[in-house]
Amino acid sequence: MNQNTNDRAENSSMLYFASDYMEGAHPLVLKALQDTNLMHSSGYGTDPFCESAMEKIRTACGVKDAAVHFLAGGTQANAVVISSVLRPYQGVISADSGHISQHEAGAIEHTGHKVLTVPGYDGKLSAADVDSFCSTFYNDDNHDHMVMPGMVYISHPTESGTLYTLAEMKELRAVCDRYKMPLYLDGARLAYALACPANELTLKDLAVLCDVFYIGGTKCGALYGEAVVIPDPGQIPHFFTMIKQHGALMAKGRILGIQFDTLFTDDLYLQIGRSAIECADMIREALKDRGYSLCFASPTNQVFPVFDNRKLALLQDKVMYSFWEKYDDEHTVIRFATSWATSKEDTQTLIRLL
Amino acid sequence: MNQNTNDRAENSSMLYFASDYMEGAHPLVLKALQDTNLMHSSGYGTDPFCESAMEKIRTACGVKDAAVHFLAGGTQANAVVISSVLRPYQGVISADSGHISQHEAGAIEHTGHKVLTVPGYDGKLSAADVDSFCSTFYNDDNHDHMVMPGMVYISHPTESGTLYTLAEMKELRAVCDRYKMPLYLDGARLAYALACPANELTLKDLAVLCDVFYIGGTKCGALYGEAVVIPDPGQIPHFFTMIKQHGALMAKGRILGIQFDTLFTDDLYLQIGRSAIECADMIREALKDRGYSLCFASPTNQVFPVFDNRKLALLQDKVMYSFWEKYDDEHTVIRFATSWATSKEDTQTLIRLL
Amino acid sequence: MNQNTNDRAENSSMLYFASDYMEGAHPLVLKALQDTNLMHSSGYGTDPFCESAMEKIRTACGVKDAAVHFLAGGTQANAVVISSVLRPYQGVISADSGHISQHEAGAIEHTGHKVLTVPGYDGKLSAADVDSFCSTFYNDDNHDHMVMPGMVYISHPTESGTLYTLAEMKELRAVCDRYKMPLYLDGARLAYALACPANELTLKDLAVLCDVFYIGGTKCGALYGEAVVIPDPGQIPHFFTMIKQHGALMAKGRILGIQFDTLFTDDLYLQIGRSAIECADMIREALKDRGYSLCFASPTNQVFPVFDNRKLALLQDKVMYSFWEKYDDEHTVIRFATSWATSKEDTQTLIRLL
Amino acid sequence: MNQNTNDRAENSSMLYFASDYMEGAHPLVLKALQDTNLMHSSGYGTDPFCESAMEKIRTACGVKDAAVHFLAGGTQANAVVISSVLRPYQGVISADSGHISQHEAGAIEHTGHKVLTVPGYDGKLSAADVDSFCSTFYNDDNHDHMVMPGMVYISHPTESGTLYTLAEMKELRAVCDRYKMPLYLDGARLAYALACPANELTLKDLAVLCDVFYIGGTKCGALYGEAVVIPDPGQIPHFFTMIKQHGALMAKGRILGIQFDTLFTDDLYLQIGRSAIECADMIREALKDRGYSLCFASPTNQVFPVFDNRKLALLQDKVMYSFWEKYDDEHTVIRFATSWATSKEDTQTLIRLL
Repeated sequence: MNQNTNDRAENSSMLYFASDYMEGAHPLVLKALQDTNLMHSSGYGTDPFCESAMEKIRTACGVKDAAVHFLAGGTQANAVVISSVLRPYQGVISADSGHISQHEAGAIEHTGHKVLTVPGYDGKLSAADVDSFCSTFYNDDNHDHMVMPGMVYISHPTESGTLYTLAEMKELRAVCDRYKMPLYLDGARLAYALACPANELTLKDLAVLCDVFYIGGTKCGALYGEAVVIPDPGQIPHFFTMIKQHGALMAKGRILGIQFDTLFTDDLYLQIGRSAIECADMIREALKDRGYSLCFASPTNQVFPVFDNRKLALLQDKVMYSFWEKYDDEHTVIRFATSWATSKEDTQTLIRLL
Repeated sequence: MNQNTNDRAENSSMLYFASDYMEGAHPLVLKALQDTNLMHSSGYGTDPFCESAMEKIRTACGVKDAAVHFLAGGTQANAVVISSVLRPYQGVISADSGHISQHEAGAIEHTGHKVLTVPGYDGKLSAADVDSFCSTFYNDDNHDHMVMPGMVYISHPTESGTLYTLAEMKELRAVCDRYKMPLYLDGARLAYALACPANELTLKDLAVLCDVFYIGGTKCGALYGEAVVIPDPGQIPHFFTMIKQHGALMAKGRILGIQFDTLFTDDLYLQIGRSAIECADMIREALKDRGYSLCFASPTNQVFPVFDNRKLALLQDKVMYSFWEKYDDEHTVIRFATSWATSKEDTQTLIRLL
Repeated sequence: MNQNTNDRAENSSMLYFASDYMEGAHPLVLKALQDTNLMHSSGYGTDPFCESAMEKIRTACGVKDAAVHFLAGGTQANAVVISSVLRPYQGVISADSGHISQHEAGAIEHTGHKVLTVPGYDGKLSAADVDSFCSTFYNDDNHDHMVMPGMVYISHPTESGTLYTLAEMKELRAVCDRYKMPLYLDGARLAYALACPANELTLKDLAVLCDVFYIGGTKCGALYGEAVVIPDPGQIPHFFTMIKQHGALMAKGRILGIQFDTLFTDDLYLQIGRSAIECADMIREALKDRGYSLCFASPTNQVFPVFDNRKLALLQDKVMYSFWEKYDDEHTVIRFATSWATSKEDTQTLIRLL
Repeated sequence: MNQNTNDRAENSSMLYFASDYMEGAHPLVLKALQDTNLMHSSGYGTDPFCESAMEKIRTACGVKDAAVHFLAGGTQANAVVISSVLRPYQGVISADSGHISQHEAGAIEHTGHKVLTVPGYDGKLSAADVDSFCSTFYNDDNHDHMVMPGMVYISHPTESGTLYTLAEMKELRAVCDRYKMPLYLDGARLAYALACPANELTLKDLAVLCDVFYIGGTKCGALYGEAVVIPDPGQIPHFFTMIKQHGALMAKGRILGIQFDTLFTDDLYLQIGRSAIECADMIREALKDRGYSLCFASPTNQVFPVFDNRKLALLQDKVMYSFWEKYDDEHTVIRFATSWATSKEDTQTLIRLL
């Protein structure tokens, strides 16, 4: 990497709050890769590093027979899981704002399945809305000419950073049971939920409430990687082959195993989340103090303030943030995201600029 | 990683020649990840690390406008490339032994396309056989009821470790031109071809002869990753979205960029290959000296000796190798693979056991 | 067919207004099948009957080089056309009420493509809404992570029986041109549009304004069959093979050819439409006279009155109609459909019952 | 249809033996369509005509709870059935000469599934070869990286006109049971098997031995149509929706019902087959008498003689036959096909020309 390149990657006077995947891996993850680098092991996730990571995740989830599979990314995990669960005549219910509905370039449809959208509220899917969707479907005399709802997709935190309560999840579970639909939870940012004081859902709860979910690594301290957990593996037979068929099976599966083994050692995964939440809370508090309004009731690592466009113009040379959406002609919703890599110093510098 | 796990990963009295993806990354690759770890950059391959790596690969290939995309694995690269190039009524021609035909769990068919197999010789596809296949197709009055050959897939080295000569490649290119089929080369083990004295094909040749090819990282020194090169990017429009749709777009694209930037700095990629070839040559020579016959004319990092089953029984507690195929009731073809991580010491120890 | 069966099919005291596919074929169509029955011809649509029908349709459409292909049904035509036109990274824009969006059991998604829904008005898609959808898409910085709008699907008449004006169609065409999207028109009930006094669009207009459209046979006098017209055949290469791949190529293609040849002889297709429209107009007038309100501004063969539920209860033993949707707790929207097979006598009997 | 067109369809001095789908429908089928033409009934196969046909087929098959579905064509039936039965990680075993493998334009792969080919003998698949294929698969340590055999496809008669014996079928069934694979039989020309003296398999046998099969109509007396029989309907849930999703659900389903109801009244289906077999036997006998050799041991309505190319040149202005394959530089294999529409007179005229 020549100096010039480094310069382009790193501008020392810039603050980086655009996303939670702007750096490498948590130093302990990198250290583990270093420590094991020249050890030999077999491929495709059959190695002892993966085995150890799986065991730690099973323990953390409280399900000793769960299947755990390590994939490289979130869109991939969603496509492999959903197309492994659905039958060809079925679709997957998602909030209209769901990642699979909006920002995965049609990955689900590419596998032959329709995404059945239901309006979300603060990014969440309500049990009542899912119930109503299914009830309308089954009461339609023509439903055999339509795509059967065969699965429910949610994320926690959601795209808007919001969290399901335990009660909401239990209601969703009940609706899923009523219509015999597996419940799948996308946990791309799960560390930032688990570490959040407002969060009511533990990994053990997820293992009871969901048929399948994934624990996000890419945005939570790993170089890359997501851990798909299937509490009752019999529900998704031949998932290994499905992973291979989707081009999602890593020859050096151990690299994923080593990373998750580290994230699930000494509560590192929670610790990573906690640090990000502390920074996000500092930002949220400062924004409220200064009278900014916040879009979405996000208590996690994403903060969505509404900014006056003139203020924003002043900010943009100093802070990298994400444009979220136009609020009105004079205001814009933006996103600040924190991560394990966000420092308290940078956070305070940002606050001074607000 | 606890000690116990390490024990399971590493048995100090064992020799590891089963595959070329049994360790982590080349130390310089890991060092680059370490050095850049806390730098900030944008996601999805838009970062300066990727930009630098792309530029170095373009230079190495001698095509300054080539598109370079970094994907996570080989099956993934094959599925994304092939389904981006083919029209729905087309299939891809492959040697019957081709990886896409045998060992990718139907990844190509999953995208809706037939793999049209032609018998290979030593893992290679001959121009004459491809010509004959196409000629038979177009001369069949019913060819509109059949899958049109729309692309040719080869690998270099092949599954059998063999190499195409420059003349063979030019013939294949001519057949492809005759039938208007793009030529795609899978370079999962390309470093081990490029570094091989017998190899006639440079990266610059590939960029001229192929419509698209990938430079393998996973088996050639990276933690994971393959670099897809499209010399004339206009040939595959919206490839970025296709990558996303296949769940193959990495949020932290930089991790791939940093690795390939390193592999293409100071000829590291070639150096990695050379070290593996030296070890493989030592094994080959020893095997020939001792009268073993070798299956396939592989001059690369894979060696395929025929062993007497009794000899093999003695070997298997001391060496990890790959079973390749049954030769006859008393003999077996096995594979020894070397890699950048194979030491001369281990190689000599292996030789003493043969 | 035994008598008992006939009884179940036919209840002489019942009136049949539930749909436009409750009988066989127009008598002239059946006669043509009878007259040609023992003649010999080649298969797969290569026969002289198909050739004659194609030529008549080309003439009717005023495009002498158009490709005409006969398929068996509407969902099939939609799936084959749309998946032949779109590239894998593209989806098709449809009104949310569009048949492909609601009532084809995910046939489009099954081919790997997302249906991109835009709110319709009276079943129609407005150029402004399509423009806004596309403009939002292209202005979104993340649009490479989203499904590109690659085609526009409309029907004429629409699901609600409404018609596009010539001006509306020209606007849609202009939007399609702006975003380089082919325009596809589903004409399942086209005879009932063409014969309608309010209709402004001729077959010649469609051939100029659309990239591809189909002329419905199943609901307009044929036993089954739809004629797909591609004014510029080069736009959809290898469409024949696509038809075969979708299982949509009829071995006895001539049966479709004979039917369409008849429908396009001596203006039978228009005459079929006219008779149905006259009956529908009688019903519409009677409904208005009696103070019923009509949902949707349909001037074609479908009429959508709002009925008091008590009135409906009296009607249902005497008339077969279609339930459309609940209007409020005491009212229901129903559909009466007429066809070439609807008699003036039955229509007058129905009117007396209203 | 103008006279000129008729002329092109019918050349009075020509003999038509090219295929079994060169005419319309058996006169009784057409009469039934005529007789029922103006009766009213509901759509999508829910009418009493279909119900009656289903009941007659259930009786003929001796399975009173079987599901019977009417589809429009054979490739369609194959694609709908196979993609409804297979899970995404599975493929279908077929003889290499199987219709799904060669002549359906990749219809099976289009649904995402690989056709796993096994060499056939005389167009048939042997139980031993299927067993060997599966045994090799399951004994391969890498089989989780490969496409699992999930179903077996055969046809009866085969592409070569040959027939399975009852013993062969029982052996195939046993292999299917051993590897938990449903057995599917394509009966496109089933009438010509059932009516053949050499045939050992009754419809009742098929219903016991197969998990699903279809009774061909298109080539056996109908205008179009195939009847898919699922002896135990629970094995393929939501098959109706799968039919719709594939664009294979006919709005006027009754047209298929009326045809099959006729074909299964008073043994018409068998009678149709018998007449064709008698003609084929006459041709076979004459060919043998004159010393021609026959390719394939076909006792059904297809005859595959080897002709000297000079003789063939003389024949081609007088007889329409099918080119089958080149035998050697001076000889060619051709096909004569008879059908319900073949007259004894034409057959004798053909024989005089041989």
